[in-house]
Amino acid sequence: MADDSTSNTPRDHGDKTIEFSGLVCPVPLQDYPNIILGHGGGGKLSADLVQHVFLPAFQNDHLAVLGDSAVFQLAGVQLAGQRLAMSTDSYVVRPLFFPGGSIGDLVVNGTVNDLAMSGATPLYLTAAFILEEGFPIAQLKRIADAMGAAARRAGVAIISGDTKVVERGHGDGCYINTAGVGIVPDGIDIAPNHTRPGDVVILSGTLGDHGMAIMSVREGLEFDAEIRSDSAPLADMVAGIIQVCPDVHTLRDPTRGGLSASLNEIAAASGCGIVIDETRLPIHPTVQSACEILGFDPLLVANEGKLVCMVPAESADAVLNAIRSDKHGSGAAIIGRVVADHPGVVVAKTAIGASRVVVAPIGEQLPRIC
Amino acid sequence: MADDSTSNTPRDHGDKTIEFSGLVCPVPLQDYPNIILGHGGGGKLSADLVQHVFLPAFQNDHLAVLGDSAVFQLAGVQLAGQRLAMSTDSYVVRPLFFPGGSIGDLVVNGTVNDLAMSGATPLYLTAAFILEEGFPIAQLKRIADAMGAAARRAGVAIISGDTKVVERGHGDGCYINTAGVGIVPDGIDIAPNHTRPGDVVILSGTLGDHGMAIMSVREGLEFDAEIRSDSAPLADMVAGIIQVCPDVHTLRDPTRGGLSASLNEIAAASGCGIVIDETRLPIHPTVQSACEILGFDPLLVANEGKLVCMVPAESADAVLNAIRSDKHGSGAAIIGRVVADHPGVVVAKTAIGASRVVVAPIGEQLPRIC
Repeated sequence: MADDSTSNTPRDHGDKTIEFSGLVCPVPLQDYPNIILGHGGGGKLSADLVQHVFLPAFQNDHLAVLGDSAVFQLAGVQLAGQRLAMSTDSYVVRPLFFPGGSIGDLVVNGTVNDLAMSGATPLYLTAAFILEEGFPIAQLKRIADAMGAAARRAGVAIISGDTKVVERGHGDGCYINTAGVGIVPDGIDIAPNHTRPGDVVILSGTLGDHGMAIMSVREGLEFDAEIRSDSAPLADMVAGIIQVCPDVHTLRDPTRGGLSASLNEIAAASGCGIVIDETRLPIHPTVQSACEILGFDPLLVANEGKLVCMVPAESADAVLNAIRSDKHGSGAAIIGRVVADHPGVVVAKTAIGASRVVVAPIGEQLPRIC
Repeated sequence: MADDSTSNTPRDHGDKTIEFSGLVCPVPLQDYPNIILGHGGGGKLSADLVQHVFLPAFQNDHLAVLGDSAVFQLAGVQLAGQRLAMSTDSYVVRPLFFPGGSIGDLVVNGTVNDLAMSGATPLYLTAAFILEEGFPIAQLKRIADAMGAAARRAGVAIISGDTKVVERGHGDGCYINTAGVGIVPDGIDIAPNHTRPGDVVILSGTLGDHGMAIMSVREGLEFDAEIRSDSAPLADMVAGIIQVCPDVHTLRDPTRGGLSASLNEIAAASGCGIVIDETRLPIHPTVQSACEILGFDPLLVANEGKLVCMVPAESADAVLNAIRSDKHGSGAAIIGRVVADHPGVVVAKTAIGASRVVVAPIGEQLPRIC
């Protein structure tokens, strides 16, 4: 193939296959010469980009941890053991306003939650806008006001910012990046690779609300009950978990790629297997209907106000109660267990008693969901 | 005008005018209903957006300082008086590669320099990409490698990141955001409003190199000597300045909007007047020619590896020598002085002995320069 750089099909892999610790998938995932939507989907293709492009270029130990945020200690400073967490996300969600929120809520809650997933108390955010020429300033005001309100709800301050404008046709209205820092409490050390066999898997509430709220707007679907995004800050919930279980092993917010991506990342990082019970997954009936109509698997749909945690079995009840007592955690449930079998693989027990492998999403099931 | 929200002309201001402390400009600057390119230009229109949209929405004391970065102290933490600085910028430069660098250099050096302008030692960066479907991964690798190399040169680590992909036609190849944190040394307090009458104004080198490097590529201009971007990290230079003058009042890197925007912001923040001597401005002859051919004022053209500082007169020689001994400061010069007259207004003495007001740029002279 002489013209490989302009054709966007994967290069010939011959009999090269992707292996899931013994299970084999025949889909070649990497070596696309050009970016496709799936590279932004939070699944295997995103991970490929990180592994093959960003990690080799930026090489450092903090990045290699691949957490939702990076935790660092300020060298040479008398910090009394305190560490900081730092995280960033850009938001390209379409549409900008949807039932239950707007891009303004997402950009604050998303970065707050990424920080919280390392156990950090989020403190300060930056905000950077890439606006398209012609974007209505009244809409920008609505978005900025939503950001301010979300920041006050989450107890953080937006302390620095930037605005760039691109020519009409070279953007899509409004893209926003936020980055944030927070303090990790003394003695707290939460990471995907701390998950251990025997841990209990707890999900903080219903699956798929954000993704299906976006999709029902895009598709013009109407249901008896409106599907609303679950966008919410989770730092208080995390503080509650840490209070009853300082030894919480792993926290993750299942955004792009849904619960499936989060569980597969945790299984891969920890070298454990994960078994979930599909009958225990909390799913709003309207979301379930929308998924069936549109052909989506709720395990793959994005959430913006939920977390999944891996905790030692003896703390499971206390953590479950702590989550349920938080205003965003009333629907929490124990959904599974970490096992030593099938390392790196996530398995779901189905309603009829069968088992299926929950494969990590390859690319983007729902483009531009956040 | 019934249809004000779709027409993008400024609303009728009657005889409302913009005042510069006694000087009067008849151009109405705000109340555009829609975003125009100038809102991203780092001039008056950008400032309008911050004042009327972002400050009211995000209200907090850190943001209101309007520095290149925000400085904060971690509450309740034994930091021994240490403070952190935080900053962010998104980059939409076109083209992505240009003589003297690439977007990869800019995204690292730009945020490093914003942190350095508060006196901070930059430590950690995040990086977030918004890629357009179809963008060549080979180009992304070149950019990521340039970022990694620039980070190592500047002594910072890129520790967390994010990638989003938008559909073909809804982006422009590659937009990148970086955010960074750094430590502000004990006792250092540098801000635009610390400028005082009597201060000496020092510029660290030639003006306009970055902007004219970009423009000469866009316009296909060729000169005897290639114009190269000055993109460079300035944290070492700032450390050298602080060493000889811990009392440095103000530091600023004149990027978008050029030296004119920086000086006007400092004059406005400090309530001082600034007088510069045009004959003392270091400008590369090829850049001067390019500006004359294309009709640009070098005072308005972006720089990506220069700083301007306001220092007490008794420290001026020591600071000048410190800057000149840095590898990016060999062309440094004293270019003016801060005065108590004409508060908020920047005046240039011209070669023929006349004076002219250096007006802050309104919008974007060179769109998408960084």
